[in-house]
Amino acid sequence: MRAIAPPLAAYRAEHVLLEVVEGVASITLNRPERKNPLTFESYAELVGIFRAVKSDESVKTFVLSGAGGNFSSGGDVLDIIGPLVAMKTTDLLRFTEMTGDLVKAMRACPQPIIAAVAGICAGAGAIMAMASDLRLGTLDAKVAFLFNRVGLAGCDMGACAILPRLIGQGRASELLYTGRSLSGAEGERWGFFNRLVEPAELLPAAQDLARRMAEGPSFATGLTKRMLHMEWAMGVDDAIEAEAVAQALCMKTEDFGRAYRAFAAKEKPAFQGD
Amino acid sequence: MRAIAPPLAAYRAEHVLLEVVEGVASITLNRPERKNPLTFESYAELVGIFRAVKSDESVKTFVLSGAGGNFSSGGDVLDIIGPLVAMKTTDLLRFTEMTGDLVKAMRACPQPIIAAVAGICAGAGAIMAMASDLRLGTLDAKVAFLFNRVGLAGCDMGACAILPRLIGQGRASELLYTGRSLSGAEGERWGFFNRLVEPAELLPAAQDLARRMAEGPSFATGLTKRMLHMEWAMGVDDAIEAEAVAQALCMKTEDFGRAYRAFAAKEKPAFQGD
Amino acid sequence: MRAIAPPLAAYRAEHVLLEVVEGVASITLNRPERKNPLTFESYAELVGIFRAVKSDESVKTFVLSGAGGNFSSGGDVLDIIGPLVAMKTTDLLRFTEMTGDLVKAMRACPQPIIAAVAGICAGAGAIMAMASDLRLGTLDAKVAFLFNRVGLAGCDMGACAILPRLIGQGRASELLYTGRSLSGAEGERWGFFNRLVEPAELLPAAQDLARRMAEGPSFATGLTKRMLHMEWAMGVDDAIEAEAVAQALCMKTEDFGRAYRAFAAKEKPAFQGD
Repeated sequence: MRAIAPPLAAYRAEHVLLEVVEGVASITLNRPERKNPLTFESYAELVGIFRAVKSDESVKTFVLSGAGGNFSSGGDVLDIIGPLVAMKTTDLLRFTEMTGDLVKAMRACPQPIIAAVAGICAGAGAIMAMASDLRLGTLDAKVAFLFNRVGLAGCDMGACAILPRLIGQGRASELLYTGRSLSGAEGERWGFFNRLVEPAELLPAAQDLARRMAEGPSFATGLTKRMLHMEWAMGVDDAIEAEAVAQALCMKTEDFGRAYRAFAAKEKPAFQGD
Repeated sequence: MRAIAPPLAAYRAEHVLLEVVEGVASITLNRPERKNPLTFESYAELVGIFRAVKSDESVKTFVLSGAGGNFSSGGDVLDIIGPLVAMKTTDLLRFTEMTGDLVKAMRACPQPIIAAVAGICAGAGAIMAMASDLRLGTLDAKVAFLFNRVGLAGCDMGACAILPRLIGQGRASELLYTGRSLSGAEGERWGFFNRLVEPAELLPAAQDLARRMAEGPSFATGLTKRMLHMEWAMGVDDAIEAEAVAQALCMKTEDFGRAYRAFAAKEKPAFQGD
Repeated sequence: MRAIAPPLAAYRAEHVLLEVVEGVASITLNRPERKNPLTFESYAELVGIFRAVKSDESVKTFVLSGAGGNFSSGGDVLDIIGPLVAMKTTDLLRFTEMTGDLVKAMRACPQPIIAAVAGICAGAGAIMAMASDLRLGTLDAKVAFLFNRVGLAGCDMGACAILPRLIGQGRASELLYTGRSLSGAEGERWGFFNRLVEPAELLPAAQDLARRMAEGPSFATGLTKRMLHMEWAMGVDDAIEAEAVAQALCMKTEDFGRAYRAFAAKEKPAFQGD
């Protein structure tokens, strides 16, 4: 089936860097002189990208990173927090819904997202790392859900739901109540980071992992992501039934037969995502 | 808004020690010669305290500890278990509902609760530690959900819901099925304890943390606690929407503006909880 | 109450080894020359065993292991995957529902299941380990949710619901997206394994643990397992209320009185499961 929207590769991003190579879409937050803060414009653009890619079968995985040795400092104090302080209620809710839309779009697209996190990863930056599927980090990473430092609550963009599932309820509570930084080593030990790598190896490692995942059966991978999301608050028996249907569907894909025939021929399967 | 009830500082506790200093309420389980067991009276008093504080804006955080080097040995065998063995069904349910009310009240008050856990922390004592928001421990801590040792089930006061979210389903299952002690070192490694400290430093460290958290934007902190509770069994998208509303509300507090103006003036914000 | 069905000890298993000794039922996957794959027949037999035992009060705990130094290689490629590739949709769904029934039956029986995992533990084998209550492992264990390697999704038999609760959402996502092996050491660190033991000690250690758990108050233990399942997607307050009822019920068992009288007599209680 042809996608209705133009492919992501044709998307002209203005506020982030976007590049699609062999099924791997790389997004780079790119205002390194200010540690890659988010702005109203970059939020909107990121939402647009993750929504657009939902029906783009040519993109298999994402790598999300920041330029210049930091991931992201989050919502810019001058560009975002300043206007918010003066904003009326209805517009504030529109803003928080828009930031929430970013996490929703990241969770709704079928492509797994790998965050490559070095240096500062704060506020909405920490949320974007949290909302990714996997996280590679460095020893110098500093992940801070610092909302309480700016007078706000830790319940931002889904953090009270997602962070406890990544690192446990007690550790998540501490980070959200205190706003303190999580170091790379702690983050790996707690399961926030899947793995730590050397700073120079961070982006290559994330892209290598993304490339290997892109070679997998992408229709099935997209269903895995969908079920991880759908089963978040589902009982075990219902989850088992939902998976029975999803997996039966996967058994009707060509990729399932390709894998079997490759196994019989002692070859590596060449998945095509259908 | 003035609280309807008298402030917690005026509360005359008889079965536990209660002290409120600069927004930090310290509760000490205080029958050290018997390792601070819970009795019918102390249960009722604790429920009363955590309910009363719900509308007391002068209390910002709690520290919960035990006197004499132990946290709590739980429901006293002679004072509690003896009567229960002889009790009729309707009264038994009233008792288990009352103990459950303690956990409900601890989760329903907006103030984060820090448990400072040394030595014995067993049965309902382990539950009180578990039901706190954060836990500091010592190497000598022994946390035992030992209900099965007294012929009961591990499903006591919410343990089958809360403990798996703190330390994972497999580790929680082991503790609840076997009743074995969790050591301080294991507890830290598994995420039950946020941090281990030296016994002499335990209470000062908990109070220092409570004080620093009390300096935060307490209205927002209370919302963080509420959303952590509310989103327990909520899907991700609903959680994101619930947080959008909660965070927009926080953006209408004075504390949000205070933080912004302090940032602009390169000062530390002085939050006031409104 | 007498069980309606014949006791499990009388069950004549043909496709797995089954032995019941002093309340501990040991199931051994036993095709060691092929690393104990699952077949249509062994699936059906396992479902039958775990369903039959639901009303068999003489069985207190399970030990699940594999013969010859491996746990299980999962669904056999020739015996299972081959036929599936050619199967029509309705039969595929019947198959995935049947495999899901195995996990449902493992979670629905009141007896805790201890998996003893050495060597290869892959595909549906990894699922069986995951669906057990506790897991003992060895350093050489290799646990692989390798569904994507055969063109399928990670959402198989409840994995997207259960695995994240054991090891955290980020680590579970990695295993399910990549299909890579989890080593024994990682598995212990992440909470998949409750403990690692030497290969020669694996089965004795699992049986010793099963025996000690079998000596506990088995009615109460069965309720613990039921509530762990029931509270999976329940809010905290509802969970507390459900536990109040369940624990009040346990306080009406003979085992509760037995424990109290043994305590008073400074003896070890002899629980009888009623």
